[in-house]
Amino acid sequence: MANFSRLKLALIGATALAGCSTMATAPAGVSAEAWAIHNRLLTLDTHLDTPAFFDTVRGYDIMERHDVERDGSQVDYPRMVEGGLDGGFWVIYMGQGPLTPEGYRDVRDAALIRAMSIHKMVAANPDKFELALTSSDAARINASGKKIVYISIENSYELGEDLSLLDTFYKLGVRMAGPVHNGTNQLADSTNPGAVGMKWGGLSPMGRDYVKRANELGIVLDGSHSSDAAIEQMIDLSATPIILSHHGADHLNEHPRNAPDALLKKMAAKGGVIHMNALGSFIKTLPQTKERTDAMTALRTKWGNPNQLESTRYELYLDELNAIDRQFPENRATLEDYMQQVLYTIKLVGVDHVGFGADWDGGGGLDGFRDITALPKITDRLLKEGYTEADLAKMWSGNVIRLLKAAEDYKASLK
Amino acid sequence: MANFSRLKLALIGATALAGCSTMATAPAGVSAEAWAIHNRLLTLDTHLDTPAFFDTVRGYDIMERHDVERDGSQVDYPRMVEGGLDGGFWVIYMGQGPLTPEGYRDVRDAALIRAMSIHKMVAANPDKFELALTSSDAARINASGKKIVYISIENSYELGEDLSLLDTFYKLGVRMAGPVHNGTNQLADSTNPGAVGMKWGGLSPMGRDYVKRANELGIVLDGSHSSDAAIEQMIDLSATPIILSHHGADHLNEHPRNAPDALLKKMAAKGGVIHMNALGSFIKTLPQTKERTDAMTALRTKWGNPNQLESTRYELYLDELNAIDRQFPENRATLEDYMQQVLYTIKLVGVDHVGFGADWDGGGGLDGFRDITALPKITDRLLKEGYTEADLAKMWSGNVIRLLKAAEDYKASLK
Repeated sequence: MANFSRLKLALIGATALAGCSTMATAPAGVSAEAWAIHNRLLTLDTHLDTPAFFDTVRGYDIMERHDVERDGSQVDYPRMVEGGLDGGFWVIYMGQGPLTPEGYRDVRDAALIRAMSIHKMVAANPDKFELALTSSDAARINASGKKIVYISIENSYELGEDLSLLDTFYKLGVRMAGPVHNGTNQLADSTNPGAVGMKWGGLSPMGRDYVKRANELGIVLDGSHSSDAAIEQMIDLSATPIILSHHGADHLNEHPRNAPDALLKKMAAKGGVIHMNALGSFIKTLPQTKERTDAMTALRTKWGNPNQLESTRYELYLDELNAIDRQFPENRATLEDYMQQVLYTIKLVGVDHVGFGADWDGGGGLDGFRDITALPKITDRLLKEGYTEADLAKMWSGNVIRLLKAAEDYKASLK
Repeated sequence: MANFSRLKLALIGATALAGCSTMATAPAGVSAEAWAIHNRLLTLDTHLDTPAFFDTVRGYDIMERHDVERDGSQVDYPRMVEGGLDGGFWVIYMGQGPLTPEGYRDVRDAALIRAMSIHKMVAANPDKFELALTSSDAARINASGKKIVYISIENSYELGEDLSLLDTFYKLGVRMAGPVHNGTNQLADSTNPGAVGMKWGGLSPMGRDYVKRANELGIVLDGSHSSDAAIEQMIDLSATPIILSHHGADHLNEHPRNAPDALLKKMAAKGGVIHMNALGSFIKTLPQTKERTDAMTALRTKWGNPNQLESTRYELYLDELNAIDRQFPENRATLEDYMQQVLYTIKLVGVDHVGFGADWDGGGGLDGFRDITALPKITDRLLKEGYTEADLAKMWSGNVIRLLKAAEDYKASLK
């Protein structure tokens, strides 16, 4: 990781000269030393759900600094600079729908449009973002002063019954993919199986072909949202180590979206990596007041999916949401709860097998860890726990880049 | 068209103030009056093949002014300004390949990438280009000072056997589509049928479904490259008038890519429009010297497809191409040959049924009409022939916008 560090230092110098003073200020609660180290590291989050905003009627200007306390959004370019986040995996997320020809067609089209929207975001900001397609692209793009855009798939429902669409998405830049989201689909059982239930006992026959084809293409397999059995089968079947891109550990809070110790150890033994999710209810049971629950239900009934609202109505919706948050505050897990999970997991599987995928813009976010500007707090805390800059370099990007490289090498070995 | 004219004049004023002096200078051979009228008109070319350059290894910077005498390219933003071209239909062109599952998959993916590249071009230049999706978008975009980007499909081979992909491309912005290119495919017989031959006697059964679905989606059907029988069936079957987006008239030079008088009259009687192609060999038989033919064959054998060459090798290829052009000049048709076809066709079917689709970057271009900077010569000549500004407004965009509106209205009528 030494190369990354040198390149990053050069970059910091250039940016400082250009007057980007935000990079020189440590966020509150972060020591100057931790901030300096954080900025030297190449940092990737493995699950940025922000592209879900790109196709809304009002769009999402990635170059505008948003306020999480106002709209709940957690990622944009100004905050990537403030939080020292160099890039990540920008997600093509599709919600689960009916397992019918019509359902498959609709989701295929929507996923293609989402992929295109990520590309358009990069095309519109060529001096700020660059598409990353190989394991070596991250360091190169970081050295050029741009933010890194890998693309991943959350829920491969959009492949329908046509596995050749995985090739299509690979050609559109996808380098990480998971088979399922909430709701068992044609590929795998989900941790949240819904009406279809735990149908496959893990992966479906098509799901097994999917693992093989992902390996052949050089795509890193992502087990997040797959049932524990499906994850275990992915570990066994995959020719290269898998990732859990935004996942938790059962030990401190048993939850379907967290993995038991034995599974994490098995994954790590095969070289895999867990990137720790910061979604509150996965970390801690969080009872809300009846008043809040009722108010939120009424809000959702009144407004529907806020992503479908045009700007004027969206602002009115936010006014009401903000009023509820003030009147009946959310019971949230804290950064400390998260760090306890992270520290436990590092001790369990080691620094070569842990990273960060906080589910930003997908449900992640905690007290003291509301958006990506809080990321340096992780670095600060882990340094205080005695982890070294080299350890942090692995967790912040080295591990996932190793997985990308393994996937590429396997693909190359087939030729 | 009066609204267009006023808006355009306002735009010209604003641009002149901004120092864009090229718009104030009439191209050589064009009267000041014709140039002023040309700039007042909303001008669309219905077949811009330029996107074929976007996915080459070296890319194509639409904002760079290229030289047709050097690289043969004919369209870029600076030349759109010089030639007073306000926009057009930017083509997703795919060459015909095998009618096999593998062939269908490959072309589907390539066509999706081409669609994305057109969107990326627009996203990268948001103050210069804008995607047009409706018949009214052209005037609105023109009034805003941007160039108009409608998207069309040349060769629907990429649909494979899955007509639902036509919906996909509609969602990606396609508003005009033709079933076939060189080589009869799964949808229609081609004017250049290749090994598959004239298999269908016009449209295939899937081709007939394709016409119906295009109508339902509000896509204008394009008969260029379809056999005369297929064109006639499209006229009969389509619920809305069809276009021949880049086509010729047989009368002065019989050629498969030109249509006989009776077919043009039948199409016009149903409201359709022919946009006149400026591809030399469709206009006139053009024998080349044996020396040139041999040299060009050797060049192609040596270099292969120039679109596949990276920049350094491409420049070497151009050096050799330019040397051949100097030593053994091409025997080209002239602008006057083109105008004779245009004038004949206008007299045959009337100003409501003719427009311009010169096949720029797809084989078009003539002596005196080498790239889009020569477009005002058409306006100049037609004015001299006694056609009015109102006539020209129809031919330069009014007719094709009428077809878009008819397609939209039919779609709306189905609800």
